[in-house]
Amino acid sequence: MNPTYQQLKARLAEIADLHHAAALIGWDQQVYMPPAAAEEHGNMLGTLGKIAHEKFTSDETGKLLEELKRDLPHLDPDSEEYRLIKITAKDYDRATRVPAEFVVEQAQVTAIAHQAWAEARARSEFGLFQPHLEKILDLVRRYVTFFPPADHPYDTLLDNFEPGMKTAEVQAIFEALRPRQVELIRAIGERPQVEDSFLHLQYDEKTMWDFSVEVATAFGYDWKRGRQDPTVHPFCTSFGVNDVRITSRWVPDLPFALLFGTMHETGHALYEQGVGLQWNRTPVEGGASLGLHESQSRMWENLVGRSRPFWEYFYPKLQARFPSQLANVSLDQFYRTINKVQPSLIRVEADEATYNLHIMLRLEIEIAMLEGKVAVRDLPELWNAKMQDYLGLTPPNDALGVLQDVHWSGGMIGYFSTYALGNIISAQLWEKFNSTHPQLEDEMRSGDFSALLSWLRAEIHQYGRKYEPQELVQRVTGESINSAPYLRYLQKKYAEIYNL
Amino acid sequence: MNPTYQQLKARLAEIADLHHAAALIGWDQQVYMPPAAAEEHGNMLGTLGKIAHEKFTSDETGKLLEELKRDLPHLDPDSEEYRLIKITAKDYDRATRVPAEFVVEQAQVTAIAHQAWAEARARSEFGLFQPHLEKILDLVRRYVTFFPPADHPYDTLLDNFEPGMKTAEVQAIFEALRPRQVELIRAIGERPQVEDSFLHLQYDEKTMWDFSVEVATAFGYDWKRGRQDPTVHPFCTSFGVNDVRITSRWVPDLPFALLFGTMHETGHALYEQGVGLQWNRTPVEGGASLGLHESQSRMWENLVGRSRPFWEYFYPKLQARFPSQLANVSLDQFYRTINKVQPSLIRVEADEATYNLHIMLRLEIEIAMLEGKVAVRDLPELWNAKMQDYLGLTPPNDALGVLQDVHWSGGMIGYFSTYALGNIISAQLWEKFNSTHPQLEDEMRSGDFSALLSWLRAEIHQYGRKYEPQELVQRVTGESINSAPYLRYLQKKYAEIYNL
Repeated sequence: MNPTYQQLKARLAEIADLHHAAALIGWDQQVYMPPAAAEEHGNMLGTLGKIAHEKFTSDETGKLLEELKRDLPHLDPDSEEYRLIKITAKDYDRATRVPAEFVVEQAQVTAIAHQAWAEARARSEFGLFQPHLEKILDLVRRYVTFFPPADHPYDTLLDNFEPGMKTAEVQAIFEALRPRQVELIRAIGERPQVEDSFLHLQYDEKTMWDFSVEVATAFGYDWKRGRQDPTVHPFCTSFGVNDVRITSRWVPDLPFALLFGTMHETGHALYEQGVGLQWNRTPVEGGASLGLHESQSRMWENLVGRSRPFWEYFYPKLQARFPSQLANVSLDQFYRTINKVQPSLIRVEADEATYNLHIMLRLEIEIAMLEGKVAVRDLPELWNAKMQDYLGLTPPNDALGVLQDVHWSGGMIGYFSTYALGNIISAQLWEKFNSTHPQLEDEMRSGDFSALLSWLRAEIHQYGRKYEPQELVQRVTGESINSAPYLRYLQKKYAEIYNL
Repeated sequence: MNPTYQQLKARLAEIADLHHAAALIGWDQQVYMPPAAAEEHGNMLGTLGKIAHEKFTSDETGKLLEELKRDLPHLDPDSEEYRLIKITAKDYDRATRVPAEFVVEQAQVTAIAHQAWAEARARSEFGLFQPHLEKILDLVRRYVTFFPPADHPYDTLLDNFEPGMKTAEVQAIFEALRPRQVELIRAIGERPQVEDSFLHLQYDEKTMWDFSVEVATAFGYDWKRGRQDPTVHPFCTSFGVNDVRITSRWVPDLPFALLFGTMHETGHALYEQGVGLQWNRTPVEGGASLGLHESQSRMWENLVGRSRPFWEYFYPKLQARFPSQLANVSLDQFYRTINKVQPSLIRVEADEATYNLHIMLRLEIEIAMLEGKVAVRDLPELWNAKMQDYLGLTPPNDALGVLQDVHWSGGMIGYFSTYALGNIISAQLWEKFNSTHPQLEDEMRSGDFSALLSWLRAEIHQYGRKYEPQELVQRVTGESINSAPYLRYLQKKYAEIYNL
């Protein structure tokens, strides 16, 4: 095999090891770090990040890539070698376009902005965050100038999270969905609400944890290559395909958050555990995009974990674990309750039917900010107006409104839409698989998810980052990313639950 | 301050971060790693070790050191700067003398030798390990040739673990002690043995764990800068002065191993947590030597943790936790039992009075091997003869004899004597502190170890690697390392317990 390619791969493997080590330190930070060790961890992460960046952006990497790019016309565009070179070259281009001084400035600005945001949110005072967000917006505008002009400056930001996706595409997908989703929520709002008091009784943490382990195991999570630990913020992290860990959070007032959170993180973990071994320790490891990743977590959490067939199998088991809370709650009641729809102010607590509207609002605001069509100081007003339009609610204060999310304080503009794209893609994949494998519901009724996982492995997981999101969804479903299946899914599900 | 010195420190800080990250990955490997993730961890450790080595042995480091060494005559030899440069220059010299190909060959030979040793021990067949040990001995002899001739070739090996110590010094220290220690054990052997059946009753793991936490807390272990987790092999590890972790092992048949193991690892951890902040992220962080480190672990485990004053305070607490096992066992009985002396075959299970003899035997054999005075094939015979001489026992097979320890299979020749030096130094420090602070026993009787810890912090811990072992012990006690205090300690303690 091409020795230049081997040299590149050896280099990339070391860089991947550094990223894996940093991820492990990050995991430790969230899970087991003693309280006074934050600085030690910061030092380790700083050094590993610096060395990985230096190695990746070095002239040696550049020369290897230049040489290899000349071979591309002679390679099969679907081959491992072709894709690895293309993806690495794109990453290299992105990493080398942004000057080191800019990265340092960005780190400084966002470190201060993050603190200001936390204080602003605690006091519910947008004015404290406003000047910092203005600086971040300025940084983001400068960031865009390091790249060749795109159809829309927001494309450059989006590409960091959804490679290849265009702002116009996302807008079109969301535009097609938004009015129908708003309509659905209004219709639900006119129906009698489901009763959910039994969800808020006292549940035992250990019993819920054990049940969530049972579910993750049934989904196919490989415990030999992972583990689950308690944290404040649940997440999934990976140090290579053979070590993919999840964390879960216990909130006594929201006992089922642990269960659905575990399903969600298991969805992410199944993706990472399924990436082909040939991509391990290369830039092609991991998922195709944040949206694709979210399509997996949301599929296992919602399309599987909030479905009736799933609970036909698991509800008796749950009842057996919690007889005093659930013995008198029927499957039907339980199913309706975990699918209760109620517009609310906070994105991370939103239900399946309202979640996307929280995202659309954020995308529209980000684009308006970037285009200069709204001043930062006017964000609270715009936010509240859109909340009223889409969800029929007006936040009583900015902490419950424009200040609720951490993303902007870290300079992450362009990120939010990946959450909604995840929901949308999950339904496209789901519809496709069900059309070729109509026995899926029956399999779920007997607790068997192996055919679903095998299909996801074969169609999505094994490829890692090999295909960009649009290309991958097109390959699997024959269609580009679109919201029709998701809308059909929502309409069918809630028509039944709310007798629409 | 000297900009070259600042450059060196910045470089060394990054190298320290890489070592800390590797230590954290090593901790994870022992404590929480999923079973199939060994290769991922091996990759991370390999890359971090390689980069740290490259950075440290690079010409840039060499040039900075050359320049700084020229300034040494103008610096106070006791200053931070002088010592850091000296120690780093010595480490650099050692790291650059050994050719990279040799390191690779050594890694290969020892990887295979380790497996062969494990199999040889499992089958109790020294012949399976013999050819590998011969290769390792050959490597060790070649290793010595990379260094300037010393008084004895073993000095070069010893210097890796006890900087500055000479083989002749260690031999003299051990020679002065061995006949007296053998004599003591014989005298004890003639006395009626203490009864220890209550140590082998069933004890609850969680209760013993909680008690060990109580003891570690009383010793002064800072939980904000550390934590304790269960492992198969107990150890202490550090990722900088603010993150020093210990692990403990639960063996149902040896319930008190968890407690004394925790005391031991806490002793190591108190040392690491006490190193001066100015040494953090430099080569001067950590302990002066393995022997000094062991002096701390053994002091807390034995001189404190197996003392009568300690148990006058803690025994009622232990009884309260284990009433069914200990209610009818008097403090005196308990104290005698945890100090029971009985010659045995296995070093790691040896009691305080016999432990050093296991070490002396190993040192003598290592030196004889290196000098060519014994052939590898004759080791079992030599081992067994010495066991009979020193401890009055003959191993029934090689698994319980010459094959019991892992060290040689990893190429670690020169390591063993640090264990005995630790015991010896611990008694020197103990005697010194008690002579200036006679109220220590009374303080221990009320569970107060703060004066002891403060003294160790001021006299030992804060200096990290600043002083070599002999220099440090001389500074603190006014004497060079010698076994007289340890012998006095053993004789006094066991005269009382065994009515000698």
